[in-house]
Amino acid sequence: MKRIRDYGYKIGTMNTGKLNKITDVHGVKVGHQTFAKGDLHTGVTSVFPHNGNVFKEKVVGATHVINGFGKTVGSIQINELGTIETPILLTNTFNVGVCSEALIEYTLKQNPEIGRTTGTVNPFVGECNDMILNDIRAMALTKEDAHHALNKARVDFEEGATGAGTGMSCFGLKGGIGSSSRIIQYEHGTYTLGVLVLSNFGQLDQFRIDGRDIGKSLKQQLDVTSEPDKGSIMVVVATDLPVSHRQLRRVIKRSAAGISRTGSFYGNGSGDIVIGFSTDNKVPHNSSNGLQSFKAIHEDDINQAFQAVSEATEEAILNSMVTAKTTVGRGGKKIYSLRDFLPMT
Amino acid sequence: MKRIRDYGYKIGTMNTGKLNKITDVHGVKVGHQTFAKGDLHTGVTSVFPHNGNVFKEKVVGATHVINGFGKTVGSIQINELGTIETPILLTNTFNVGVCSEALIEYTLKQNPEIGRTTGTVNPFVGECNDMILNDIRAMALTKEDAHHALNKARVDFEEGATGAGTGMSCFGLKGGIGSSSRIIQYEHGTYTLGVLVLSNFGQLDQFRIDGRDIGKSLKQQLDVTSEPDKGSIMVVVATDLPVSHRQLRRVIKRSAAGISRTGSFYGNGSGDIVIGFSTDNKVPHNSSNGLQSFKAIHEDDINQAFQAVSEATEEAILNSMVTAKTTVGRGGKKIYSLRDFLPMT
Amino acid sequence: MKRIRDYGYKIGTMNTGKLNKITDVHGVKVGHQTFAKGDLHTGVTSVFPHNGNVFKEKVVGATHVINGFGKTVGSIQINELGTIETPILLTNTFNVGVCSEALIEYTLKQNPEIGRTTGTVNPFVGECNDMILNDIRAMALTKEDAHHALNKARVDFEEGATGAGTGMSCFGLKGGIGSSSRIIQYEHGTYTLGVLVLSNFGQLDQFRIDGRDIGKSLKQQLDVTSEPDKGSIMVVVATDLPVSHRQLRRVIKRSAAGISRTGSFYGNGSGDIVIGFSTDNKVPHNSSNGLQSFKAIHEDDINQAFQAVSEATEEAILNSMVTAKTTVGRGGKKIYSLRDFLPMT
Amino acid sequence: MKRIRDYGYKIGTMNTGKLNKITDVHGVKVGHQTFAKGDLHTGVTSVFPHNGNVFKEKVVGATHVINGFGKTVGSIQINELGTIETPILLTNTFNVGVCSEALIEYTLKQNPEIGRTTGTVNPFVGECNDMILNDIRAMALTKEDAHHALNKARVDFEEGATGAGTGMSCFGLKGGIGSSSRIIQYEHGTYTLGVLVLSNFGQLDQFRIDGRDIGKSLKQQLDVTSEPDKGSIMVVVATDLPVSHRQLRRVIKRSAAGISRTGSFYGNGSGDIVIGFSTDNKVPHNSSNGLQSFKAIHEDDINQAFQAVSEATEEAILNSMVTAKTTVGRGGKKIYSLRDFLPMT
Repeated sequence: MKRIRDYGYKIGTMNTGKLNKITDVHGVKVGHQTFAKGDLHTGVTSVFPHNGNVFKEKVVGATHVINGFGKTVGSIQINELGTIETPILLTNTFNVGVCSEALIEYTLKQNPEIGRTTGTVNPFVGECNDMILNDIRAMALTKEDAHHALNKARVDFEEGATGAGTGMSCFGLKGGIGSSSRIIQYEHGTYTLGVLVLSNFGQLDQFRIDGRDIGKSLKQQLDVTSEPDKGSIMVVVATDLPVSHRQLRRVIKRSAAGISRTGSFYGNGSGDIVIGFSTDNKVPHNSSNGLQSFKAIHEDDINQAFQAVSEATEEAILNSMVTAKTTVGRGGKKIYSLRDFLPMT
Repeated sequence: MKRIRDYGYKIGTMNTGKLNKITDVHGVKVGHQTFAKGDLHTGVTSVFPHNGNVFKEKVVGATHVINGFGKTVGSIQINELGTIETPILLTNTFNVGVCSEALIEYTLKQNPEIGRTTGTVNPFVGECNDMILNDIRAMALTKEDAHHALNKARVDFEEGATGAGTGMSCFGLKGGIGSSSRIIQYEHGTYTLGVLVLSNFGQLDQFRIDGRDIGKSLKQQLDVTSEPDKGSIMVVVATDLPVSHRQLRRVIKRSAAGISRTGSFYGNGSGDIVIGFSTDNKVPHNSSNGLQSFKAIHEDDINQAFQAVSEATEEAILNSMVTAKTTVGRGGKKIYSLRDFLPMT
Repeated sequence: MKRIRDYGYKIGTMNTGKLNKITDVHGVKVGHQTFAKGDLHTGVTSVFPHNGNVFKEKVVGATHVINGFGKTVGSIQINELGTIETPILLTNTFNVGVCSEALIEYTLKQNPEIGRTTGTVNPFVGECNDMILNDIRAMALTKEDAHHALNKARVDFEEGATGAGTGMSCFGLKGGIGSSSRIIQYEHGTYTLGVLVLSNFGQLDQFRIDGRDIGKSLKQQLDVTSEPDKGSIMVVVATDLPVSHRQLRRVIKRSAAGISRTGSFYGNGSGDIVIGFSTDNKVPHNSSNGLQSFKAIHEDDINQAFQAVSEATEEAILNSMVTAKTTVGRGGKKIYSLRDFLPMT
Repeated sequence: MKRIRDYGYKIGTMNTGKLNKITDVHGVKVGHQTFAKGDLHTGVTSVFPHNGNVFKEKVVGATHVINGFGKTVGSIQINELGTIETPILLTNTFNVGVCSEALIEYTLKQNPEIGRTTGTVNPFVGECNDMILNDIRAMALTKEDAHHALNKARVDFEEGATGAGTGMSCFGLKGGIGSSSRIIQYEHGTYTLGVLVLSNFGQLDQFRIDGRDIGKSLKQQLDVTSEPDKGSIMVVVATDLPVSHRQLRRVIKRSAAGISRTGSFYGNGSGDIVIGFSTDNKVPHNSSNGLQSFKAIHEDDINQAFQAVSEATEEAILNSMVTAKTTVGRGGKKIYSLRDFLPMT
């Protein structure tokens, strides 16, 4: 599958990881369950922060709301306690409920002490509204779909119109799942930061590739009426950089820079929400009655991570668009792929 | 059912509404669905802001997180857009998913244009963890339970171990649903502010009634080991006072004063979350292409509302405790009611 | 003085106001006091929301922190009460104190009841660090300088290396004061949104004009080492659009999109802070014991304002750079103007 | 000087430190400069987090706004970067400017590299409005007063009508500086948490001592009209407990519980603001190009710190009142001390 770099667009100046995907961060895996038939074009995507029991070995986590027209669940506790304790699921706006139930089931099965000797678990589910191509009123997905997405997680995952990205639209073209990564180098070590997006936002006439204002001419070619920016983007940021919750929150906020460079001003109807985690500092569920030790970069060294998340978010969005194929969805509605128009001349 | 005033405790100095319940605010209704058999002691409670179509006629709304160890869904969008567009549901920690699906179904049925010509809907569900008396791992509730709670809403509702309050514990005693209201008087009119709580927090030795430190002696009588403050409280605030989203958010924050006066310092494991709405300024779903007009009190006049929410929250918590009967739950665990110990001598 | 449009760069698609400055919003005025001699290159800039007594007739106001490495004063109260009650002053990082004292003096003089029959006043002062060209350790400015900036406010003000912008640097080139405006059209009326920036941020190799990546070649021409992004940007947003505090806060957040499009990822050392006001809904200092009436746009109509603030911020930054002349400052340090390199070929 | 425990009121259940003051935290010192003559009753109070160069060795810090009707400076950067880099000053509402300038001078003197090879410094100044007893319009204090408060810092400081507390009022009685501390014990060590307040809030009829509702009878004795709760409280929290910025922020929020138990519902006109620091994890100004190591308690162990700050805040407020002598201030206005009415019978 050709990605945006294969069309000659190199976003930013930092080096990418080996796969140029979020799974370049060691331990991270991504799984998709796709549901595409008739008027239903939707699915679920999972992101695992590590291979172990995430409830028992939590990762430092943070969420950030760029624009809150969204129905994400789980963010309150993540920002209070600074940790993520389940895999992350992404899906369509009306299947957040079943996905959160599936995450609870998944975690209960692994951890028989929940609800007995320890409290509860906080599932995280993000969403976008794929109603242009998908009949969201059908609420088609089941807990089984979510379990499939969890069970199929792997390192070399697909992008585009797959999993939660199946029915998404972006800048009036086909959107979906995209990813990218950057390498961060310090004297004390080399680290990786990866981004995965579920793209479903933007107005075509505002669309830019690496600063180049190509949306207007695409709009003329497609002869479509530009609709208001509604839809949303979910951004998942993973890194093995040692950072505190506060630093991580600063880092993930910079995905807003990457989003805006593709042509968004974070429209009213767009739920633009970011979740991130660092796999370096793990937090055990139970207190050992001792002090915990953490490592963190000095604040003066954080700019590389800021630039990395900005670049990787911009590139992940473009990857989501060029890898997502032209799709005919609900009621015969056809949404074109960006790749049908590349290379631009 | 005797309430805290019937035992001679008068909380605060402001006058109460007629029922001294949240439903003193015109249009507000509350419904319960109780599920109590064997190891299952749980349920759902609904709060309706008005009698109409809440999606089409939204109310000014706001949420506030006192302590974020909680799994509430819907708060991000409420604070971004300043409106609530569904009834509110309260339930146990692992049935948030089914309750949010039921709210979506309920709203889809009333509004066939959702997912077709207009976007999506933001359900609000709050929760506490009733695992002491309830087998939360069973995830026992269904969408039907939530629909029953919605359908049974009425003005003169029950308090105590009912609906979402069925399995809750508070200060080591039985908790649950409680309510109270206050009258606010200005030159420009008379208004009502009501509070409903789902109480499930606190350590017995910290418990106070109207400032009186009675938890310590209760602890000796009950011969129990005080457990750390985990559990949570959900507070729902309703008013017909004309306030902006910003003012409403200031008002509902003051429920923290009422909570602390019963003996809480907002413990680590307690998700203490407030949601509030004003029924005065309704916001239509669709733009009329015109300007909207709003009324609001002057900021200098807001103290009455602050005091009202503080007093009503404190009294609602005490009401939840004296109306909740001694309950034997999961594994034969018995939680006593406060009323078994009143009057204190 | 040539501005960025005079070099052929047209930012965005919306129409500008008559002057293409913040003062296109009726009643808004801007004043500068410049201090430039020897090692001292600094100053003060004032922004008036209207011609009346701002303490007695407050404007709906909001602030937003994009990155909080900054020393702005006054934002806590603005976001609590939703109003601005003094003119706005901008200056260098170490003269915030004298500027806030001057604002207090200014307000006390107009309002003899402060400290007697009414409480206090909340001055707002924003800042950037001009240490590259200015000896900030001298703390050179006095209250008189601030008073001069207040007294010289007018509609057709200068941009560039003037007032608070005298010593600022942006993307390794000369920064300072810049402005731009946009016209917002609804069925219910035509409104104006204007932006003024104090620009002092960015790394040269990241700099872009209208998406065009020209920083890298400029860096080669100038043969400079790119320094980390520290410095800051203050953004002032004015509008006559009827919006609530909550809506205004949403609007001003979108200046982040404009900033990032010039090449910023909101670097660690950059205090990127926005303040905005709407002149439409004025709030009297004293309660009339009645209800207040407000007008506001419907949320569905807010995208125009989002786009306007994004476009005007991007253009204001570019205007600040092309209007700011090459400057030799502290210790003979020379910072070039962007205009020395335009047009690029 | 008798304190509240000397009158038989024991607040809470945890043990106090040796002095029962904030300076029980090793390294913390407090200094006062008092200005009391004629219509002027005001001053400055300093709090040092440790004996070294605070700019070079920053402490983990956080601020929290309970109610934002206040003019505190410095909080934006503290919450962004998670550190405090100057001593803390408290003063009256109109002398924040001179105090922040004095803190800059103080820090510049110690650190000649500021403004040359390193950037700037973020002073923190909190305030309350002492206009009932002090002519705030005179803006009487100078930078020299602030320097005196800095230079006189010591471990065994005075409470009451001294320093910044000279002119403050609390619940219609005399307020000012008060302090208290608590001992926190874990298996891994014993720690101290101390609180210092500048009290200037509350309505007499709401006042409570350890839950006892004595404000109403005091109001009758004093025959005063209760005024609305305006004024403010500044709370400074110090601890040697190893906590992250996020944990510290959670801890200091609990001072709200202590405030409300004295009878406050955080009135509209009251700027209720908390700043806290941990002396355990110091952060060097300059990056060493290596990773930093931090220690922190497990979240499950944080409740002791929550209870400590709640108890110590409540006791510090009461200490501020019983140690502050009856004062005649501006225009002959007389404010009585609580101690004139103790013991209550």
